[in-house]
Order: sequence, then structure tokens, then C-alpha cells
Amino acid sequence: MESFFKVKTPEEVHRILDRFGPAGTERVPIEAALDRVLCEEITAPEDLPLFPRSSMDGYAVRAKDTFGAAESLPALLEVIGEIPMGGAPSKELGPGQALRISTGGMLPQGADAVVMVEYCRLMDEKTLEVDRPVSPLENVIQPGDDFRKGRRILEKGRRLRFQDLGVLAGLGIGEAPVYTRPRIGIISTGDELVDVHETTAPGQVRDVNRYTLSAFCRKLGAEPVPLGRSGDSFHDLRALIREGLDRTDSVWISGGSSVGTRDLTLGVLESFDGFDLLVHGISISPGKPTIIGRVGACPVLGLPGHVASAMVVAEVFLGRLIRRLSGLRGASLEGRAHLTAVLSRNIESAPGREDYVRVKLSKEGGRWVAVPIFGKSALISTLVEAHGLVRVDLHSEGLYQGDAVRVRLFDDASGGGL
Amino acid sequence: MESFFKVKTPEEVHRILDRFGPAGTERVPIEAALDRVLCEEITAPEDLPLFPRSSMDGYAVRAKDTFGAAESLPALLEVIGEIPMGGAPSKELGPGQALRISTGGMLPQGADAVVMVEYCRLMDEKTLEVDRPVSPLENVIQPGDDFRKGRRILEKGRRLRFQDLGVLAGLGIGEAPVYTRPRIGIISTGDELVDVHETTAPGQVRDVNRYTLSAFCRKLGAEPVPLGRSGDSFHDLRALIREGLDRTDSVWISGGSSVGTRDLTLGVLESFDGFDLLVHGISISPGKPTIIGRVGACPVLGLPGHVASAMVVAEVFLGRLIRRLSGLRGASLEGRAHLTAVLSRNIESAPGREDYVRVKLSKEGGRWVAVPIFGKSALISTLVEAHGLVRVDLHSEGLYQGDAVRVRLFDDASGGGL
Repeated sequence: MESFFKVKTPEEVHRILDRFGPAGTERVPIEAALDRVLCEEITAPEDLPLFPRSSMDGYAVRAKDTFGAAESLPALLEVIGEIPMGGAPSKELGPGQALRISTGGMLPQGADAVVMVEYCRLMDEKTLEVDRPVSPLENVIQPGDDFRKGRRILEKGRRLRFQDLGVLAGLGIGEAPVYTRPRIGIISTGDELVDVHETTAPGQVRDVNRYTLSAFCRKLGAEPVPLGRSGDSFHDLRALIREGLDRTDSVWISGGSSVGTRDLTLGVLESFDGFDLLVHGISISPGKPTIIGRVGACPVLGLPGHVASAMVVAEVFLGRLIRRLSGLRGASLEGRAHLTAVLSRNIESAPGREDYVRVKLSKEGGRWVAVPIFGKSALISTLVEAHGLVRVDLHSEGLYQGDAVRVRLFDDASGGGL
Repeated sequence: MESFFKVKTPEEVHRILDRFGPAGTERVPIEAALDRVLCEEITAPEDLPLFPRSSMDGYAVRAKDTFGAAESLPALLEVIGEIPMGGAPSKELGPGQALRISTGGMLPQGADAVVMVEYCRLMDEKTLEVDRPVSPLENVIQPGDDFRKGRRILEKGRRLRFQDLGVLAGLGIGEAPVYTRPRIGIISTGDELVDVHETTAPGQVRDVNRYTLSAFCRKLGAEPVPLGRSGDSFHDLRALIREGLDRTDSVWISGGSSVGTRDLTLGVLESFDGFDLLVHGISISPGKPTIIGRVGACPVLGLPGHVASAMVVAEVFLGRLIRRLSGLRGASLEGRAHLTAVLSRNIESAPGREDYVRVKLSKEGGRWVAVPIFGKSALISTLVEAHGLVRVDLHSEGLYQGDAVRVRLFDDASGGGL
């Protein structure tokens, strides 16, 4: 087994994960397309808007009829009617004329500007005094001002934000072409595990990773597929992985933490035709005993059984994998929020190992202070108390109290009760 | 109408929104509880773990049997067997004895420490050489080390993160007591609006706010309930709002942007018994013509029809409202990510008005640069290009090129293709 040991640095692991890509595409109604990733570029099928619109309440006019207008010498215009919302103006505007118009109304033929209602006084039903001149196109949105027909609007590989969906709606695009959500098969292993609903006998613990890893997938827009639990049995574990390979886009096996179970996972993976071991150990702490391989195009992962270790590996690496499987593009795939904080005490670290230290944040005198939470990586309490992770570089021997550190937040700040 | 004008500052609006609270509670399986908000404090129903566990692979021993051990003078112990995973040890450990144990295994009676396998040599089946001493409790997780029975684990009003769900699973809590998701009724008004699937006639535009506001709600964990579209008809609009009051926890009416429609919305709201107008205009730009009121406990909002204005109001105020309706606690409810950037050019602003300027971000020489996007608030393109908003304070006359500004991001950085 030792000869296969492929301990990689975090940077090498990132490059390996970057080779994976999305599994398929589909079309979804824009109502359901938030946070989905475009699999095609979107171009405008028509001008938006399609007609000249007023951006103010006021009067549609010919700009030159208002030139020189002032409070002391207002321009006098003849009001010939009102433009209905939602329809085309029935009248053309002649010299010296004005038409009442509302925000969003369509400009009539002959008009090239809108005077805001604040600068107008209606003297009688037909006579309007205008106190200020307007320039041509003032308060007017021209056809195509928002998007011109044929213009590239949204790029392939973009995650659809709420405003992006608005553009699609505005252009009459009711369905978005997107990559399918990655389906992640989740398997827990270990003879000691029981279900959340079961009472534990001495020596037994409940399966935690199933829930944390599933929720992690969901948070990043992937669809978790819990495949069940396997004891330390080659046959049972192989059957679950087989099901995962058939039904999902990536299979994640967590635990057991014991050497025996770790060896079992690798042994089972090696029994699949075309299995390729890419990573056998990562130089990080916690999270070192991580296995990454592929069976065909499907990434398969053996994660540490320790709850906190598995979660750190998820945070640091698996978010990136999900983004790749989702089809997200862009140089910076690490989208998690960060903030800068002052370290409350020294952190020691061994060079040659990238450490991820859980920290709790508090605000003191207007600045964020990061307090390291030390504790065994089997303890989930360390992660519940933590707001995020501080990375200690591979080549560093540690960080000092008072250092400004970059904290990678688990969640937006409201989540952790900040 | 003028006498009712209640233009408020953003700060006043925040305080008004803070008066609203969650509508109800329910219990959901932890598989579905990610990002839901706890409506009760959670305390540990039992110790976690329930029994002493090894955090390493190695041998369970009595620490004092290893005192003084060294490579040159190893301690000699008798191996009496192996502890099975998932079960209680069948043997008690006597002086001078050792039991093989895996990570997560249960410590036997008589043992108080675990020697890592790396420091052990098995001389024959029964004889173990130990190269280093261990202290009592070394490599052992004690009962309650993670959470002690009765300890407060998660506070009421906390949004459940993926690790929090892990703790619940570990403690055998399969359902979480949470506040119901706020249901937000969405109504669009304006004679000019047609559906996304319709062809537009001159003067008509497609209903964009329905999609952007729904997606905004979804993003923040609320459940949008699109109630439909109403022309500028008192009767139709009243019927939709009535339905919203009956079926949802908050009703949002957007558009039309014209004075006539704005007056209509207020008129209809005033026709409901117990309607209380709280805000009639906010001193921000864009977004000034916003109405906030309540009918009984239900917040009702009249939002600007301009797409970009409605979205800025949503970003700045409605996220806070949703958080309140969700039951989220904490001083800092504004959970959106921020980053600091250098402003690429001057921004002018009128004192007495809080401006929200859309900015595009780019990285230049290792620092973020924020480029203001100026454009009419009717243009949705300004928001599609933007990565976030820069606030110009109520009392400021503007910001200068080169100023360090805080950019409120619409999304995590990956969303906008950074």
C-alpha cells in the first residue's frame, strides 16, 4: 500500500479537482433558476426596451420648444391629451404641443424629451407653462438602452443572480439553459455508527457526517443523495459505492477513522474497473487521511471519519469540486466570504503542513478579533462554536498574537450569530 | 394626501422594520433544516460522547505503566486482545496490560490513556514494546467532552449551519424546532405589464419585478407566493392584496412607477380596516417612493416600479424585514458580505439623501477597484453589470476618487463572475 501513497499539497489537490466538470444540462423555468449555472451564453433576442419610454412623470415635448424657458419666461405649450399606460400613443406630437405622460409611458411620434411634472404648470386644460428647458432625449429611455438586440448579456458558466433572472424575464426568456445540479452520493462507514433515531449502545455513536456533508452539498447548490451506511464489510461498502456510481455524479465515503476502515475504502475503490487514485493523503491538518480518485469521469472521495476533519476538507476542497461539477467558471472559484481579524494568541504549526484552525470571532473596540478554538478534531463542538477557519500556510511555522489574519467564514455573518 | 407624507430616513425605516417578528413555528427533520432558524434553545439531552473514546489508532493502557518509557528502555506490556468497533470492550484492563484500539473505539475499564500505534512495536502476539510515555487521558475523548448533558448548545434565533445539524444528529435530535419560513406575497401593478411568455405590443413591457423579488425572497430563505398582476384598477388590486393578507406573512406590491399607480396602491391599502401607514417615502436614491404599512401584524409594502429601484430597496431594507419575519436574532442582522475597494471616480450626492450607487468590481494590482455604474434606475442592465452597492451617507455630499469604500456584495463573489 505504501508504494501507492500520493500525499499532495493543497495546491496540487486544487489543480486535480479543477479537472472535473459538469455532468449534463437542462432547461428550467426562470422561477426555479436562482443560483443555477448557465450552460450557454445568453444574447438579447430583441431590444430592451422595444420603444422609447419616459423615465419620469411629466409631459412629452419637442426639446427645442423649451429652449430658453425660465421661471420668468416660461415656454407655453398646448396640451393635446394624455398617453395611456400599456398602449401606443394615438396622437403624433406637433410643434408647440405637449402630451401628459407617466413614468414608463411610450413616447409619441414627434416628441424627443420629457419635462418633469415639477417644472410644469397647467394654466388651463390646454395650456402648459414650462419653467425649464430640456435637452433632446432628456428623461427618455431609448430602444435598446438597457440591452441592444444581439448583445451578450450573461456569460456561460455564470451563476444566476436575482437581477439576472429579471433580465431574462424582461427579454421574454422564460426558461434558462443550465447545467444539472451535481448529485452527490453520501456514504458513511464504520461498525460503530447507528442512525440518528436509534439509541446508542456502549461503543456506538450516531452517524453525523451524513447530515453535515448533505447540508454542505445543499448549501452549495448540489443535491445530496444519502446512500446509507455500511459496516466494515467489503461487500456492503462495494454495493453502496456501485449504487453511487450508477446514480450520482460524485461519491463521498466518510469514515471510519480507523486505519482498518481507511484501508477498506481504498481496497473497495481499487476493485472497480478504471479506478484511478489521484490523491492519497493531503498535507493539511485536520484532514490528512483523505483519498481522491475517479472511476471513469466520476470523482470518488474517501473522507476522514472525524466529523470536524471531514468538514474542514469539505470547506477547503469540496466546495471547489462542487463548483466545478456545477459548471461555474471564473478564476476565483472560492466564493466564500472572508473578513480580516486580529489573532488573539499565537498559533503553532509544523512547516510542510497547511493548518486550518477554527476560530471564533468577536468585535472588540471596532475591530474583529479571532480566537483560535483548539480541540480534538473528533469534537464537533469546536465547529459549532467557530465562525470560520484561519489558514496557516504550508511553509509557515505559525502565526503570532496580534497578526492580521484572513478568516474564511463558514457562512454569512448572520448565520453564526455575530 | 400630502398631510400623510411620512418620509423617513433609512435608520428610521430599519427601526420600524425591526418591530416585525416571525409568524409561526414548526418541527422539521434535520435533513431539511439547513438555514432554518431555531425557535427554541437546544440543550444536550445526554453527554456527547456517552463513553470514553480513543482519538487515535493504538493501544489502550494504564498511563502509569508507560512512565519512563523510552526508545532505549521501552515499557513492556501484555496484549490481551482487541476492542471491537461499535461494541463495549469485553475485557477489563489490568496492570501491565494493553488492548488494541482503533480511532473512535471505546476505552475498557482500567485503561486511562491510548498510546499511538507509531510508538508501539509488537514483539510477538502478546508482547508490546512502548517507546514513549503517555499522560493520563492522552488521546482519549472523555464522556461529555464534546457536549455535557444539559449544556446549552444552540440558541433560539440561530440560523442552522451544516455543523449545527451535525450536533443535532450526534445527540439523537432528528427534528429541529424552527420558525416557519416567511411567505411573501408578490403583486405587480401597472396597465403596461404583460407576462414573460407574452409578446409585447407597443407600450407594453414584461413583468420583471415578479421574478426578481421572488428570487430575492428565495435567496434569503423566504417563500415567495406570486399572487399575480393587476392593472390600475382599485378593485383588482384590492382583491389581490386581500388574498395576500389571507395567505401570506407579508405583501409586497411593486409599481407602477407612475404617480397615479402609486396613489392607487396607497388608496387601496387605506381601504383595509386597521391599516397603519408607517413610512411614505424613504430618503434614499434610488427607491424614494416606497410605502411601508401594516394591516394587523402583516407588513405591506408598496415598492417602486423601476426594476433597479425595487431591487435596491429589497437589498437595503427587505432583507432585514425577511430576517425579522424569519425569527433571526442578533445585533447585526445585515449578513451580506462586504469588501473594501478603491473608488475609481468621484460620486456626487445630495445631502439629506442616502445614495446607493451600483458598482462593478475589478482587481487591479492586488486591490479591488469599484467602478460606479451610472444609469437610469429603470435600466436593469446597471444591476446585471454590478457586483454590489456603495452607500453614500445621508449627510455626505459625495465620495472622492481614490476613497476606500465598503462595497455591499449582491452575492458571494463567485456569483458575479469575479
